[in-house]
Amino acid sequence: MDVLVPFDAGEPKTRLGGLLDPDERAAFARASLLDVCDAVGGAGGNPTVLATGPNDVPYPVTVDDRPLSVAVNAHLDPPMGVVVADLPLATASALERLFEVDADVVIAPGRRGGTNALVVRHPDVAVDYHGASVRDHRRIADDLGASVAEVDSFRLAVDADEPADLVEVLLHAEGRAGEWLREAGFGIEIGDGGVRVCRE
Amino acid sequence: MDVLVPFDAGEPKTRLGGLLDPDERAAFARASLLDVCDAVGGAGGNPTVLATGPNDVPYPVTVDDRPLSVAVNAHLDPPMGVVVADLPLATASALERLFEVDADVVIAPGRRGGTNALVVRHPDVAVDYHGASVRDHRRIADDLGASVAEVDSFRLAVDADEPADLVEVLLHAEGRAGEWLREAGFGIEIGDGGVRVCRE
Repeated sequence: MDVLVPFDAGEPKTRLGGLLDPDERAAFARASLLDVCDAVGGAGGNPTVLATGPNDVPYPVTVDDRPLSVAVNAHLDPPMGVVVADLPLATASALERLFEVDADVVIAPGRRGGTNALVVRHPDVAVDYHGASVRDHRRIADDLGASVAEVDSFRLAVDADEPADLVEVLLHAEGRAGEWLREAGFGIEIGDGGVRVCRE
Repeated sequence: MDVLVPFDAGEPKTRLGGLLDPDERAAFARASLLDVCDAVGGAGGNPTVLATGPNDVPYPVTVDDRPLSVAVNAHLDPPMGVVVADLPLATASALERLFEVDADVVIAPGRRGGTNALVVRHPDVAVDYHGASVRDHRRIADDLGASVAEVDSFRLAVDADEPADLVEVLLHAEGRAGEWLREAGFGIEIGDGGVRVCRE
């Protein structure tokens, strides 16, 4: 399956600004992008990075600097997958589960209402990543009479948007992004408020 | 499979205190407990509620007021499952996936390092829910030479500990806890900071 991997090549991960400087954020985001592309490939998919700017990765890159939903819809050619780049927990087996579900629209929900991964087999579906997009994508599919299924995956639900998300990366990620974080000195500490990320 | 469902019958869900008064927290926690017991039953398991105090539910109840790990270990009789009560997104199919994995220890990780659901088939495994328990349970199993597997489930990863978690309940829960929240006037709103829970 052909899979778009949208990637913000500009100022990624600004909400991690308290923990990572801009160069570190770019390195971490790139590690996660490569993890996702590798996982897509491992699941039998053909990833194309849909980047907002030029990007040197060992995968095909299409540059489109328009807003996310506009860019994805411009390049969406069903049957096709769309997997966001900031899923450092993604694995080939999680994506295999996504790709093998037989429905017109298959959604892997993200936390906070997101749609982290998607398969579109219906020709008229357009994505809308604004707001609680998982709800919008269910509705878009229903309005078209398209069948909808969801994949229940923690690994596809966790993006690395906020400092608390890095706890999940440190505990569960198996690829470059987790390794990058550990090598950058990050670990977890356990206090009264639960488990938190810390840096040496 | 016999399954313990630990439940805090005392002052559950204190971190939701800003949104729910004590009676509401108890009602919401009870709804989630029943959802989990129903899902366990739907997956072919036999749930027993392991409660810190008396509890009127249509399932067998064992009362043990000791701390969580102590109480679970006292009643753990492998092969057995342990599924925490505050998983309002849990479904029978998610638990079927947990129960059918063939390993001495099968873990469904929770967010923030938790172990939300567990199957123990090795006679010498003891649980330890303090801190980043998912890491501890991996280590406990490794130290015993027990095989370990993990189940990748968003529905089993999301507990309802914090206000932000209620967004997940409102968007994804299919049982009583989600219905209770909606009937109590909760919904989601979309602002600059993303998706948040709100009350009418």
